[in-house]
Amino acid sequence: MLIGKVIGSVVSTRKSEKLIGNKFMIVELAEKMGAGQSQIIAIDNIGAGIGESVLVATGSAARIGCDQAEAPVDAAIVGIIDAGQRFQ
Amino acid sequence: MLIGKVIGSVVSTRKSEKLIGNKFMIVELAEKMGAGQSQIIAIDNIGAGIGESVLVATGSAARIGCDQAEAPVDAAIVGIIDAGQRFQ
Amino acid sequence: MLIGKVIGSVVSTRKSEKLIGNKFMIVELAEKMGAGQSQIIAIDNIGAGIGESVLVATGSAARIGCDQAEAPVDAAIVGIIDAGQRFQ
Amino acid sequence: MLIGKVIGSVVSTRKSEKLIGNKFMIVELAEKMGAGQSQIIAIDNIGAGIGESVLVATGSAARIGCDQAEAPVDAAIVGIIDAGQRFQ
Amino acid sequence: MLIGKVIGSVVSTRKSEKLIGNKFMIVELAEKMGAGQSQIIAIDNIGAGIGESVLVATGSAARIGCDQAEAPVDAAIVGIIDAGQRFQ
Repeated sequence: MLIGKVIGSVVSTRKSEKLIGNKFMIVELAEKMGAGQSQIIAIDNIGAGIGESVLVATGSAARIGCDQAEAPVDAAIVGIIDAGQRFQ
Repeated sequence: MLIGKVIGSVVSTRKSEKLIGNKFMIVELAEKMGAGQSQIIAIDNIGAGIGESVLVATGSAARIGCDQAEAPVDAAIVGIIDAGQRFQ
Repeated sequence: MLIGKVIGSVVSTRKSEKLIGNKFMIVELAEKMGAGQSQIIAIDNIGAGIGESVLVATGSAARIGCDQAEAPVDAAIVGIIDAGQRFQ
Repeated sequence: MLIGKVIGSVVSTRKSEKLIGNKFMIVELAEKMGAGQSQIIAIDNIGAGIGESVLVATGSAARIGCDQAEAPVDAAIVGIIDAGQRFQ
Repeated sequence: MLIGKVIGSVVSTRKSEKLIGNKFMIVELAEKMGAGQSQIIAIDNIGAGIGESVLVATGSAARIGCDQAEAPVDAAIVGIIDAGQRFQ
């Protein structure tokens, strides 16, 4: 998994109907975790707020692990990092 | 998922028969999302036009999430970002 | 999917028996699609020739989409780009 | 698989209920294995300690190979490298 | 698939029991194939020796294609490149 910070969200009205009901959060990846990529769009079933540090799962783990096995989802917020921790 | 802008398409006449009926869009990835890769070829079932910003799902999510589980598809446009949003 | 140009092939006599019958093509990825990686080895069921531009599917899409679900294949040529197109 | 060194862990109280019971270890990837990414968060079922060199499996291998096929897990510590070995 | 050269192996005594019986080879990826990552750990069912050039499959292809569908394996040597070939 990767750690990042929620910095916003994007709205998509015209989308796959399998994505209806999902929020698309913009996650800024921690500098040491991005491999040159600094942002990713992840769905959020945990209720993360702007500015919170989160755990992001990617690939089939996002889809299957979030009970959306048939949806075109490849990244999901799966945990919120407890406040006060330093990971870098 | 990644965000990018549709900048064109490519035509492939000789291709896997499982790909027949798909359009192959050239998506220019947003600078912060590309990890050094700036373009990807994605199928499009949403009807995105040139210049539109789109949400791209990659990996098995593209194949399974777009009801083409048996096709050699690893990237798909799954949403169009509403106009007027800034994500960078 | 990624676009690249077929520049050669490699021969492997001692290999997984599930790979018997496959050709292993060396594909030079288009500069904007490689993310720092400039070549990939892909199987070819389409009949691409040296110098042709091709569409490459990676990951489970290559395996499942090419009817080799049980084979250790992670990249496949799935289409040949029509001549005369410019994609960069 | 990748080799890295366990350098710490993170705590996530609000998380997917499928992740309950897992520890989230911060693994510093070996320099030659990271592709620009130097850290990853991996679950640990082996009992690795801080400072130990470990083998990390990523993608569906982490989820399925660790008997958590339905959990949003994309990286797992699957072995501890025996002491005294040099791998770089 | 990727091409690389076997440069050694690592031993892991404490590991997932699903990995028992596997050898963990250190493969130095060909310069044009690594995307910034120069080494990967792959299991070997083919019997590659130190110094041999090999074909490496990654992701679910390694696991499923090597008849270890339930094991935490994400990279496998699946072929040995015939001597005398030049691929770079």
